[in-house]
Amino acid sequence: MPATRHIETHFTATATVRDVVIGMADGLTVPFALAAGLAGTVTSTAVIVVAGCAEIAAGAIAMGLGGYLAARTDSEHYSAERERELRETEEMPQQERAEVTRLLRDYGLTDEQTRPLVAAITANRSRWVDFMMRFELDLRPPDATRAPRSALTIGGSYVLGGLIPLLPYIAFDEIPAALNVSVAVTLVALFIFGAVKARFTQLNPLRGALQTALIGGLAASAAFAMARLIG
Amino acid sequence: MPATRHIETHFTATATVRDVVIGMADGLTVPFALAAGLAGTVTSTAVIVVAGCAEIAAGAIAMGLGGYLAARTDSEHYSAERERELRETEEMPQQERAEVTRLLRDYGLTDEQTRPLVAAITANRSRWVDFMMRFELDLRPPDATRAPRSALTIGGSYVLGGLIPLLPYIAFDEIPAALNVSVAVTLVALFIFGAVKARFTQLNPLRGALQTALIGGLAASAAFAMARLIG
Repeated sequence: MPATRHIETHFTATATVRDVVIGMADGLTVPFALAAGLAGTVTSTAVIVVAGCAEIAAGAIAMGLGGYLAARTDSEHYSAERERELRETEEMPQQERAEVTRLLRDYGLTDEQTRPLVAAITANRSRWVDFMMRFELDLRPPDATRAPRSALTIGGSYVLGGLIPLLPYIAFDEIPAALNVSVAVTLVALFIFGAVKARFTQLNPLRGALQTALIGGLAASAAFAMARLIG
Repeated sequence: MPATRHIETHFTATATVRDVVIGMADGLTVPFALAAGLAGTVTSTAVIVVAGCAEIAAGAIAMGLGGYLAARTDSEHYSAERERELRETEEMPQQERAEVTRLLRDYGLTDEQTRPLVAAITANRSRWVDFMMRFELDLRPPDATRAPRSALTIGGSYVLGGLIPLLPYIAFDEIPAALNVSVAVTLVALFIFGAVKARFTQLNPLRGALQTALIGGLAASAAFAMARLIG
């Protein structure tokens, strides 16, 4: 019973939820701001829809494919660093053993106290290297099989998020009506999204909602001002 | 001497370099793709410049401010979890002490060997909690003072990256000329950026260059196709 409670209280987002949050945060914000910005200068909703859809396509690929390649790079970086650590435990074991002692000393352990622990950790080379990877280099084994799924989740969430502010410009022919509905719908979406996101980091949902809506509002205002200035 | 070599071989990007990479990767890609996408449908470079600048403003704020608030959330999440651990060491010390024993046992220590270690770690509450944060929850103390600097670096890099593909549309009145120069200049920039980025993750620079240019090219092609389809 207490074990379950313990796990629950430390509950954080799963990898998929994090990917949805990453894609949707930018998907709701940037196409919304771009459309609002253009609404202040162009004369037809058609241009806004074209620009918005082009942005969604570009953003989804940049985030999805970019994330996929970054994950693969991380995975290769991890393998390269692990190889190096493996070599170092072989070529300069005393130094690497001293590193383990040093890392444990930070927790108030004397050299004498750490001796059995250091011996246990360094007795198994794979465990030794895993310890160095995690606590010296702060690298965790990446899940390489997750990369393509992660890319699709991030890209798909960007598209879904981006369609919300754009649909009013498809539905309405008049720019002012489309802009007003888009602002209203997107602020509500940002509010809900921010509140849900906050739940996963155990923060106040109202604050999360306000923060997310603030980013969207500021981005849209800046885009509007910028378009007015130039257009 | 070996100590220096040791640091050098594990050299990875500083936080600032990482922020520049984050901002510039998307800044070079998305405004470039949006501009190329619009170039296939609109009739004046003015619309492209307005849309591009609005996108840069929106993207820089979404990434910069979004990154700032995410860093603050991380920092608060860490504090909240630390508070909870602190409370738990007070309210259920036996259980938390058993956790320390369990974590150490995972490294192949016998109960007898762990006893003095557990006693030393749990003798100081702050150190005990630090140990739990790092070894049980795998959380590291975030650098809260870095958040505003990080936001400005990411946002600024997005603006700088985004201006490169956009300048040709400001310099040339004819869309075909502007598009050709923008594609050429941006592909070169993506190539150089990808190669430099690869250096920091110790990967092959040529592969890094090709990957980055590929993302930009695919994003631009998708935006172009999308705009053509709708416009």
